Amino acid sequence: MKIHKSLCHLALAAPMALAAQSGDTTKPNIIFFLVDDYGWSETSLPFGDKVYPQNLRFRTPNMERMAKKGVMLTNAYACPVSTPTRTCLMTGMNPAHMGITSFISLYKDIQPDAIGGHPGATNPNESDIFAHPEWNYNALCPAHLEGEKDLYGLNHTLYATPMPQLLRDAGYHTIHVGKAHWGPAGTPGSNPYNMGFVVNIAGASNGHPKSYQPEDNFGNIPGKGDYGSVMNMSQYYGSNVHLTEAVTREALRTLDNPIRQHQPFFLYLSHYSNHTPIQRDNRFVQKYLDMGYDEGQARYASMVEGMDKSLGDVLDFLDERGIADNTILIFYSDNGGHSVGGEKGGELHTQNLPLREGKGSCYEGGIRVPMIVCWPGHVAPDTRINTPVSTEDFFPTFMELAGVENPQTVQTRDGESMVRLFTDGSEFVAEARKAGKIGSQAEANAFEVPASVSGLDPQRGLVFHFPHQLRFEDQDDIDFMSSLRKGDYKLVYRMHTGELELYNLRDDLGERNNIAAKNKKLVKSMAAELGSKLRGWNAPMPTVRATGKKVALPDEI
Amino acid sequence: MKIHKSLCHLALAAPMALAAQSGDTTKPNIIFFLVDDYGWSETSLPFGDKVYPQNLRFRTPNMERMAKKGVMLTNAYACPVSTPTRTCLMTGMNPAHMGITSFISLYKDIQPDAIGGHPGATNPNESDIFAHPEWNYNALCPAHLEGEKDLYGLNHTLYATPMPQLLRDAGYHTIHVGKAHWGPAGTPGSNPYNMGFVVNIAGASNGHPKSYQPEDNFGNIPGKGDYGSVMNMSQYYGSNVHLTEAVTREALRTLDNPIRQHQPFFLYLSHYSNHTPIQRDNRFVQKYLDMGYDEGQARYASMVEGMDKSLGDVLDFLDERGIADNTILIFYSDNGGHSVGGEKGGELHTQNLPLREGKGSCYEGGIRVPMIVCWPGHVAPDTRINTPVSTEDFFPTFMELAGVENPQTVQTRDGESMVRLFTDGSEFVAEARKAGKIGSQAEANAFEVPASVSGLDPQRGLVFHFPHQLRFEDQDDIDFMSSLRKGDYKLVYRMHTGELELYNLRDDLGERNNIAAKNKKLVKSMAAELGSKLRGWNAPMPTVRATGKKVALPDEI
Repeated sequence: MKIHKSLCHLALAAPMALAAQSGDTTKPNIIFFLVDDYGWSETSLPFGDKVYPQNLRFRTPNMERMAKKGVMLTNAYACPVSTPTRTCLMTGMNPAHMGITSFISLYKDIQPDAIGGHPGATNPNESDIFAHPEWNYNALCPAHLEGEKDLYGLNHTLYATPMPQLLRDAGYHTIHVGKAHWGPAGTPGSNPYNMGFVVNIAGASNGHPKSYQPEDNFGNIPGKGDYGSVMNMSQYYGSNVHLTEAVTREALRTLDNPIRQHQPFFLYLSHYSNHTPIQRDNRFVQKYLDMGYDEGQARYASMVEGMDKSLGDVLDFLDERGIADNTILIFYSDNGGHSVGGEKGGELHTQNLPLREGKGSCYEGGIRVPMIVCWPGHVAPDTRINTPVSTEDFFPTFMELAGVENPQTVQTRDGESMVRLFTDGSEFVAEARKAGKIGSQAEANAFEVPASVSGLDPQRGLVFHFPHQLRFEDQDDIDFMSSLRKGDYKLVYRMHTGELELYNLRDDLGERNNIAAKNKKLVKSMAAELGSKLRGWNAPMPTVRATGKKVALPDEI
Repeated sequence: MKIHKSLCHLALAAPMALAAQSGDTTKPNIIFFLVDDYGWSETSLPFGDKVYPQNLRFRTPNMERMAKKGVMLTNAYACPVSTPTRTCLMTGMNPAHMGITSFISLYKDIQPDAIGGHPGATNPNESDIFAHPEWNYNALCPAHLEGEKDLYGLNHTLYATPMPQLLRDAGYHTIHVGKAHWGPAGTPGSNPYNMGFVVNIAGASNGHPKSYQPEDNFGNIPGKGDYGSVMNMSQYYGSNVHLTEAVTREALRTLDNPIRQHQPFFLYLSHYSNHTPIQRDNRFVQKYLDMGYDEGQARYASMVEGMDKSLGDVLDFLDERGIADNTILIFYSDNGGHSVGGEKGGELHTQNLPLREGKGSCYEGGIRVPMIVCWPGHVAPDTRINTPVSTEDFFPTFMELAGVENPQTVQTRDGESMVRLFTDGSEFVAEARKAGKIGSQAEANAFEVPASVSGLDPQRGLVFHFPHQLRFEDQDDIDFMSSLRKGDYKLVYRMHTGELELYNLRDDLGERNNIAAKNKKLVKSMAAELGSKLRGWNAPMPTVRATGKKVALPDEI
């Protein structure tokens, strides 16, 4: 009934909403440029206090160009793995609150923890110490389809009101292109149309393509394909168009229609890149080989450059169509870069240096990600903001941008809007620079925007939670961890040992110097905050095999 | 440059266009309900002058319900096979004019004549007598992408301005759901987005699903799938929702958005049913088995009833949303029913009785199809019109409905608008019935609407052309034929023998009594008309293997 009421309301409101784009900027276009498995330091645009060696290994001129036009968020976070970030974007809920704490499998009812998420795998629980937590491994289903749950035999599912549906109902033309990964095949969450997207290209349950290469038909090989093959891309089969290029071309083509119709659009441009399989982008790979990169490194660097080229195409498009000033473009990654598995070449566990570890970990390498926001005339150019923000902040941000004042959702949301941070925050930074308060990159990274300006408290606690095992083999600095970022400090909870570690990120970005023993009071208060959040959300926790009991929360040890 | 100009024009015109749905009916919604391989007599709604035995074998209550609300076109034609009809719908050109005269294969550059259209087949030309004609077997590419042809290595392709693009540019929300089949994978024509559809669900190069069954994931079986698997339907994998039902549900869900936005919509609801594979629709099959149907017959009848149930859901939806009066619903099939191959059970070559033969043939069984038009308040209910119409008439019809007065296309179009036939024509019939001029079904079928009323000359010549072989084995009454329908008469040209046959359909619907010998003058004039049309269009013609010469046109023998 609620839905029907809101339809009636919007039917009346629509003509005004549709007229919004022509001139006034109350409803800006939104392009959310989401990259997969892309680490914070894997770019020639340095997000740190200085240029680190990893920055020198990559070529991302368009990220540099975008940063010149907008603001870099140097302390932006995502969840440790993909599905939690992606479902959090849809719901505004912390993954621990959703009960969606790991990546989903391709097909429903297959618990993918530690099995790589592939149907047919038969060893669902590799940990000797811990048994699986109970979690929502069938992930997200839009609330309006809860009545159909018997049709799909759904359990272990979160029902929530998805963000794109609210944007669509607010007059936005909502477009999904690329990777979705919100629910396994056999569930409504696998279908972007159910999330409120008006257009879907290439999105389904799959978390990565079977291939990025057009000669492989992006995995759709007769007699070998499956639902990991990328859909809606058949025109490029057998061409020389890499998947990243194909996704970009198709995404930009979908914008013709809303631009012509004077309808504000929300483009969720979600690249499969840079997820495995790590394959050559033939346009860019040779120079990295010539520079002496090993095969894996060269492939990965070429994928990154292909993704960056896509960003350049988006920037060009906005300029060419004259809509840059009324379009907010957000660059973000769904988790840290992979640091295990070996496909990216180089030495394992070093991929995200200076950050510790990578994808799956609650150390910074798994969760801190590159983020840039560009909105000419609204966001001050060439600025840096160090206020910590995280995935759950996007939902209220998009609502504020779209002018949705009290979004009606069945779920309780966790994040806070970043709009004032982007606008007033970046302006505050620009003025400080003008006044000579900021000179070097290190000073820019250290300069704080007060809550009174941005509306966002820099001391706010951000929770990360991965009560799972990432791969077959146990990874000591990755599996079964939680962490809390709060101001300069980071509390890390290692479930295997029950250890609590404390780091001061201001002078120890790499989380090498555990200062817990010297700061017992702070450890206790941060453990209480982390424990209290997880307890209140009824967060999934593994069970200790030896005792049959759930692992204790950090404030219970 | 032309495209850019028209974009500018439309950008200004759009706000008015968008407001059009609220109240005035200058831009009605259009639902084009397209069924696959569905024969004229395979329905409990008799399109003939009386009820024929085939009509008694099927249960299609919703076609009956739709006919009660609208007008039946008893002499509606399609092309002998699928791709020519479907590309003709997009272009308004006769297939012989397009050079697209047979069905395409799944993948580009594979000439599918007589090989079933499946990649991997190695015997491209089974005819001992004739060699392949040169034709556009890479089918249709939207004209605006001609500049990209090198990207795909395209040849044997028609470039044309697609109808949905013009509707979209006229303010319509254009939605494609189901089978597309306009171009093979590896070409832009395989992607409905390129045709001007704003939304695509499940449309690609494939001409049929690998399976209709949800337990088969509609063909998307891990390690076995390919681009014949149906896309965008993953939520129904493993459910009990048949593909026909899934297509219907998804199609109706896409209408929420334009209804809410007060934007007129064009829904191209293109069922995969009733194409092979002939599989049970579990909701309906048992009663046919209980009635003694063989397995193939029961399966096929259950598929037909499932398709009819979908039509009922559309009719219900229009009523429930209160938009029936401003929505024109058109029911149509892409060619006649299959009469060979055996999957449908029963006796071969009898499936479309009283019509002769079936799919592929230029006899009536291959080309005459069920068509119904419903538009309350505009089309007189419960009426029949016998004016011959054909596929190329839809393009101008849609343009007139959308208020596009001079559609700008790169191609020269062939058809004529049917709008006045639907409206004034049906009204003329209703008044004649009121005046007692029409009583029985036979009288209704014989009653003529003059061109002065409908704008369409009942004596207009309609051309059908299939210079191919349908299957591996030669089918004498199907392969290598052309025909011309003109008033009561039908000229059939059999290329194998060079024979010209003439039938009077008014008293010989089954084309059993060849009256050519007694009507030499009429045969000559009709052969001249058919030959002249084919010559003017540079229609593809096979080559005689023995002589290396092209088969003669019907007026050259």
